[in-house]
Amino acid sequence: MITWNYSARTCWLLVTFSLLFLTLFISEARSQEIPANYLEFDFPQMHIGIAEYEEGPTGTTVFYFPEGVIAAADIRGGSPGTVNAPAVSLGYEEDFINAVVFSGGSWHGLSAATGAADAIKEKRLSQGEHNFIAGVLGGIIYDVGNRRFSRVTPDHELGAKAFRDAVPNRFPLGARGAGRFAMQGIYYYWGGGADHFASWPHSGQGAAFRQVGPTKIAVFTVVNSLGTIVDRDGRVVRCHRNDTLVGCPQISELITGKLGSLNESIKKTGGPTSNTTLTLVVTNQKLPYVQLQRLAMQVHTSMGRAIQPFATDFDGDVLYTVTTDEVENPDLLPHDLAFIASELAWDAVLNSLPTLPDRPKETNGSLETEALQKYAGTYEFPGGSSLAISADAGKLTARYTGMENIYFDEERTYRLIPAGTEQFIIQSAASDVIRFDLREGEVTGLTLNPGPWRIRSERIK
Amino acid sequence: MITWNYSARTCWLLVTFSLLFLTLFISEARSQEIPANYLEFDFPQMHIGIAEYEEGPTGTTVFYFPEGVIAAADIRGGSPGTVNAPAVSLGYEEDFINAVVFSGGSWHGLSAATGAADAIKEKRLSQGEHNFIAGVLGGIIYDVGNRRFSRVTPDHELGAKAFRDAVPNRFPLGARGAGRFAMQGIYYYWGGGADHFASWPHSGQGAAFRQVGPTKIAVFTVVNSLGTIVDRDGRVVRCHRNDTLVGCPQISELITGKLGSLNESIKKTGGPTSNTTLTLVVTNQKLPYVQLQRLAMQVHTSMGRAIQPFATDFDGDVLYTVTTDEVENPDLLPHDLAFIASELAWDAVLNSLPTLPDRPKETNGSLETEALQKYAGTYEFPGGSSLAISADAGKLTARYTGMENIYFDEERTYRLIPAGTEQFIIQSAASDVIRFDLREGEVTGLTLNPGPWRIRSERIK
Amino acid sequence: MITWNYSARTCWLLVTFSLLFLTLFISEARSQEIPANYLEFDFPQMHIGIAEYEEGPTGTTVFYFPEGVIAAADIRGGSPGTVNAPAVSLGYEEDFINAVVFSGGSWHGLSAATGAADAIKEKRLSQGEHNFIAGVLGGIIYDVGNRRFSRVTPDHELGAKAFRDAVPNRFPLGARGAGRFAMQGIYYYWGGGADHFASWPHSGQGAAFRQVGPTKIAVFTVVNSLGTIVDRDGRVVRCHRNDTLVGCPQISELITGKLGSLNESIKKTGGPTSNTTLTLVVTNQKLPYVQLQRLAMQVHTSMGRAIQPFATDFDGDVLYTVTTDEVENPDLLPHDLAFIASELAWDAVLNSLPTLPDRPKETNGSLETEALQKYAGTYEFPGGSSLAISADAGKLTARYTGMENIYFDEERTYRLIPAGTEQFIIQSAASDVIRFDLREGEVTGLTLNPGPWRIRSERIK
Amino acid sequence: MITWNYSARTCWLLVTFSLLFLTLFISEARSQEIPANYLEFDFPQMHIGIAEYEEGPTGTTVFYFPEGVIAAADIRGGSPGTVNAPAVSLGYEEDFINAVVFSGGSWHGLSAATGAADAIKEKRLSQGEHNFIAGVLGGIIYDVGNRRFSRVTPDHELGAKAFRDAVPNRFPLGARGAGRFAMQGIYYYWGGGADHFASWPHSGQGAAFRQVGPTKIAVFTVVNSLGTIVDRDGRVVRCHRNDTLVGCPQISELITGKLGSLNESIKKTGGPTSNTTLTLVVTNQKLPYVQLQRLAMQVHTSMGRAIQPFATDFDGDVLYTVTTDEVENPDLLPHDLAFIASELAWDAVLNSLPTLPDRPKETNGSLETEALQKYAGTYEFPGGSSLAISADAGKLTARYTGMENIYFDEERTYRLIPAGTEQFIIQSAASDVIRFDLREGEVTGLTLNPGPWRIRSERIK
Repeated sequence: MITWNYSARTCWLLVTFSLLFLTLFISEARSQEIPANYLEFDFPQMHIGIAEYEEGPTGTTVFYFPEGVIAAADIRGGSPGTVNAPAVSLGYEEDFINAVVFSGGSWHGLSAATGAADAIKEKRLSQGEHNFIAGVLGGIIYDVGNRRFSRVTPDHELGAKAFRDAVPNRFPLGARGAGRFAMQGIYYYWGGGADHFASWPHSGQGAAFRQVGPTKIAVFTVVNSLGTIVDRDGRVVRCHRNDTLVGCPQISELITGKLGSLNESIKKTGGPTSNTTLTLVVTNQKLPYVQLQRLAMQVHTSMGRAIQPFATDFDGDVLYTVTTDEVENPDLLPHDLAFIASELAWDAVLNSLPTLPDRPKETNGSLETEALQKYAGTYEFPGGSSLAISADAGKLTARYTGMENIYFDEERTYRLIPAGTEQFIIQSAASDVIRFDLREGEVTGLTLNPGPWRIRSERIK
Repeated sequence: MITWNYSARTCWLLVTFSLLFLTLFISEARSQEIPANYLEFDFPQMHIGIAEYEEGPTGTTVFYFPEGVIAAADIRGGSPGTVNAPAVSLGYEEDFINAVVFSGGSWHGLSAATGAADAIKEKRLSQGEHNFIAGVLGGIIYDVGNRRFSRVTPDHELGAKAFRDAVPNRFPLGARGAGRFAMQGIYYYWGGGADHFASWPHSGQGAAFRQVGPTKIAVFTVVNSLGTIVDRDGRVVRCHRNDTLVGCPQISELITGKLGSLNESIKKTGGPTSNTTLTLVVTNQKLPYVQLQRLAMQVHTSMGRAIQPFATDFDGDVLYTVTTDEVENPDLLPHDLAFIASELAWDAVLNSLPTLPDRPKETNGSLETEALQKYAGTYEFPGGSSLAISADAGKLTARYTGMENIYFDEERTYRLIPAGTEQFIIQSAASDVIRFDLREGEVTGLTLNPGPWRIRSERIK
Repeated sequence: MITWNYSARTCWLLVTFSLLFLTLFISEARSQEIPANYLEFDFPQMHIGIAEYEEGPTGTTVFYFPEGVIAAADIRGGSPGTVNAPAVSLGYEEDFINAVVFSGGSWHGLSAATGAADAIKEKRLSQGEHNFIAGVLGGIIYDVGNRRFSRVTPDHELGAKAFRDAVPNRFPLGARGAGRFAMQGIYYYWGGGADHFASWPHSGQGAAFRQVGPTKIAVFTVVNSLGTIVDRDGRVVRCHRNDTLVGCPQISELITGKLGSLNESIKKTGGPTSNTTLTLVVTNQKLPYVQLQRLAMQVHTSMGRAIQPFATDFDGDVLYTVTTDEVENPDLLPHDLAFIASELAWDAVLNSLPTLPDRPKETNGSLETEALQKYAGTYEFPGGSSLAISADAGKLTARYTGMENIYFDEERTYRLIPAGTEQFIIQSAASDVIRFDLREGEVTGLTLNPGPWRIRSERIK
Repeated sequence: MITWNYSARTCWLLVTFSLLFLTLFISEARSQEIPANYLEFDFPQMHIGIAEYEEGPTGTTVFYFPEGVIAAADIRGGSPGTVNAPAVSLGYEEDFINAVVFSGGSWHGLSAATGAADAIKEKRLSQGEHNFIAGVLGGIIYDVGNRRFSRVTPDHELGAKAFRDAVPNRFPLGARGAGRFAMQGIYYYWGGGADHFASWPHSGQGAAFRQVGPTKIAVFTVVNSLGTIVDRDGRVVRCHRNDTLVGCPQISELITGKLGSLNESIKKTGGPTSNTTLTLVVTNQKLPYVQLQRLAMQVHTSMGRAIQPFATDFDGDVLYTVTTDEVENPDLLPHDLAFIASELAWDAVLNSLPTLPDRPKETNGSLETEALQKYAGTYEFPGGSSLAISADAGKLTARYTGMENIYFDEERTYRLIPAGTEQFIIQSAASDVIRFDLREGEVTGLTLNPGPWRIRSERIK
């Protein structure tokens, strides 16, 4: 057993190192493609860090409070995954919570929360602090399943890394951290076959901040909801996975349409579900616990405006409220603070929507079969599904083998339309992009949807 | 003891008959003024009855389920008043609930719920039923305080009467039953002085019904919320107590305005607060308890769209879901049922708004002091406040003495503008109406705001 | 309307006076039989009143706090019947609760709670108090079913009466108030036929008080539990309905026995069940809400020692903690206060056991049939069951017709054994007593079990 | 940053390897000293594994259900540390829980739960299972603080190891797994100075099993309670850390004593506290969710008998109930199942008490200073506290420097009494043992309390 253990461990380490290396390498690459988008604010009592696994992709977001916060929770979803929520539901007005950790990876993402907790302990011990026990609240979204091939989920180390990288006053918006592979709004588009998923847009993590007198209020949210994001004019904000130019309807139209087609709806099975919105409301205003709890309830309820429907059986919605317990502000009553936070929550939901990468343009003129021939071959995704590329009569086609997902139906052949150097658009409802990857002139793999949600496959034939 | 019992019973019956007669008499009178407005539907397993005390006014609404229902509750408000909510929070899939009772009267309105329960017991005993214990759920709104002079609240007998009057398939909309003196939306208009209350509109009780295949879904709501009622276009639906022609803003404008004036907000004191929305969702579809509970949570959250803000510290919001547990409908999944019910809840909130009585028109031409002199005198409201009417120089004025309320500031003198026979409009922001009441040519009292929310005073001088 | 109102009021008053008179009269009668038993203590901020319906019997106990208390609740039972428990579960540190009302009558006993609330309102209005809304918590026990014939349950008026009779510093112990017809411990004796119920002893309401420094702690409990009362030596304290001399086993013996005969156990049907323990913990020490809630949980859990089993599916256990919020006592930490209260709770459970009336002794010598003939006839209980008494061969027998209950099997004939003037002992496991009632020499009825739990029947033939 | 990261990682790995090696080495050693003690039973649907860090010591216990279980939770303690408890509080009757993980390490022990979850995922992926998401419930006890010097807590890897080692039908009793360094009953002995802690006995993890017809019921518990363990005769079972021969009082005596000395009690600070009892009830009987939840409440309440006091503010008590949902057993009603489980819980609490190692006997005759001189020196514990040993006039003394704990007061000098080869008994209330450790004739360190709770120190001078 020792032998095995050692070799298992070695293997594990190699995997970890590779992942780490890959992450660092790819992060670098990635940042060249999509301009970073941050909310900046002035709330230095809170440090925020993210960490991501490019293979996945998936990620985690750590909110670290060096001085501790008093916390409360409101759990409204049908399938919550949490760490320590009951401890902050008892009414203590004590600042024993040191971090809130949101992650992808469904229930496995909770490892990031415990990982961050242990990293805080390590830091405290290294600083000679006597009381090293760190209180951490955790929440997760389901970013696995049919939206990606890889089964990588945030782990202990990713949570620790996000903690170590945390800095004050800055929050990365969009497809970052726990929102790395979030999506929203499938409720209205559900149906058989991959084409239905074309209208399932990516979302991410959003934030908003406001100061009223001495009171600071920040709201952070990771939107992976069954419902769709709605703006203050009642308009659905995004309704296609890749195309931002698609005109989206009013939510009232979507609702009317759905009411007429309810027999085509999603069956639920036990356990964690595909959807969740995670929210954190932070203030520095002193509040009695009962009002911290009320704040959670009022804000969470208000989010039924920005995400419709909200708090369904399919969602695992969790909202935490925390206060650094610093300033008295008799001018801002608790329900008014909650009123402001409710509007911030709407803002945060809206800016959780990531900037989409520029779409490649279709190239005019046909290509010669000969030129296309170099792409022909079989490409394998993580988990074993594969795409067989053929070149024939000046056209490139792709045939998918493997489990159906949001990109491909099983054993369906897709036409690939040229769209710039090495890039092709898949002829389907979603118009996903394929880019062939070359090393020293050789096609060694292909990337599905280059950009934040890229998925790599290796050429195996 | 038997002797006594008989005389007690006789007495009780006399009381009941008197009340019945009075209520019928007054209802009759009332119905001449405001046309009755009902939602009709097909759901005979539920009987609905209302009863009202004109002196108040206040009322109660009983939903009676002769065969029993399985129930769940979602309590989101900061100050709920309830009967038996914990018994339906444990997860039993048993149909031991026989009625849901909503009432005005703040915590005292719970007497109507226990009164209805005892009336069900009496009925069962009279029918020789062995198991006479009736399970009743109760909820209340706060319709007292500064909106009325009388301190009458629904009691045991009013609940019993509403139960005895219950009929299937019909629900009275607007200012009826528990919604008899409901109001909504003061959050945005709060301020010092009665004029601020001009924008505080009446609401009432609403309902909506839909059948999908064999599944029937009905939603009933009594809206007495701090927040304001918003329609599906984001428009505030009513924003003046008496005038329906006032153009109401978009809710986004109201919110923006409020965000700029938060220092003028409502202080809360302990105990029941001035606001609450009570909701009942009824279906005949079989649902496991967990889904009945989820239904409550999803629908309640969705109501944050129709009432903004919702579930505040000031609201005592309670929502019950019940099923008659009759039909299987695999085509309608629980979360879709909740989606439909959420839209019905919005409809119900919207149609809770009562039809306002026609406004009297200002009469052209001045009146002679002599003619006005007959109105001069002092008029006392229930509770002891009074209005001193003076006629001088062809003008009638009213000076109020007593506790400030939504109609009158203390010791302020109001000009009364003639508006038809014996009627005058109070010159103030709210433009309330005064009608002098004559008996045999003598002015014996005056009625503030003739119509559903009329308040009578007696001439004492 | 005024006219009517007066006559209604007059009628109401007459009803009230009649009831008062009757109650006083009967109480007087009763007190001659069983010496009153009170716990006296020094806690004048709380007034305690009871009221009972002799026909039943059943009753209610009101704890009134003129200055208001902060409250919390712990609901552990499977079938709780409550008023307003959710309002004190939110965490408010505000003294908006004015009374706690415990009653018999199953869910119908909640009428006593709303009745007491309305009586407080009346009192406040009569004193010219502006804020008349009274916050009342309610709980009930199931004292109907097979233990009595009458279906009388505490109502609005009984609650009002108990409130009006409330006095400080004195609590009636045993079969009084809400504990008027409580019983406990049937779990170990359940089986087919009335004889099994012989071991089902009466219980009642108990109390204990202790002062530690400036801190006063009182615990009150109404024990109607499925489990049996156990003392600090592990001994079952009472195990027969009528006989106190029966030697009761150690609880460990009972448990061992039960473990061997579990197939003979009680089936539960939906709704309120036959058992419940209601408890109120009162202190004057200032406690944060979280500690008031912890106090509820620690004390309620501790009661699993005094009542075994406790908090079963069949019990509707509710415990409220309240503080008058008067004294700071840093020397008595919250968990130590809870420790003391837990011991008081045990004391209160123990002294809830009522003193049993003296058993009549069997009379030596046989009676002549002729002498017995005057008793022969049919006697009807409330609800229509009857006992046919026959005299034959110097022996009196009774044949029961009606629904089986804890006294009689259906259509079973019992031998009656003479035991003093007009009294007989029923020859059965329970040895209940029958006393024939005479008026002017005529036998006009009979009383089953003269004493606190007497049940009267009328001679109909 | 990369550079640092790598070196940190390397360091971490070295630590991990060292720990792993140490663990394996010491586990081997340990098993020679204390005979293993197991409960064996027949319930193969559940696999149980433990893993421990000897440096600590601390550990974790994994209950793994390959086919999944339906679960419910009852949280009664004042400071619970949990993973996923809310997900099983919603009422789902679905078997999405795959493991329950109990750990030492306070909140940091939750890492073992997420570690086990990830190990289940790894296993599933390696078996080609499509649905790899594992549902894991977690709970922790506080086994750090003043009872040990090391700050090692269970981590991700320890949870994974316990999962990988899990086997059916066998549970290690006593100071094993999560119960590795549990203690119980300090409530009655709290006071200033280490001597008070002499009466604070070790506890551990216990278990009991029973089959009734086709129904299997197992209860497992880790007892680290503030309250003391009481047997069915009301006797405190253990009341000294090292000595089993001390005659323990009746609990009633302890309670009486404590009631007289409450001013000497424990102050609580925020966050996780020093006490907790974790319990798991497992059955194979099909139960509706509501009854699974009732089972949790009834059993948890019943444990107030075995541990007194229970569920205090200082305890973080959590109880989970799970069913493999396999057999119908209409003969065993849910409340009877709960009754049996309650007795099993008591049994489990009782057998959580570990066998104490044999006490060394005092050696007659004095030793020469010369012989003792080899022990003189300074010995350092993990964390930096130290013991300075001096030999003088044939006597050995030890002077402690460092933070006060349950073994040593700060800067107090203890006489060491010879007790066999290289062993000495510390002259104090607790009579802890010191054994000097030799390598090749050299004293290289000393071990405090050889046996399951041994603590090693290195000679530094």
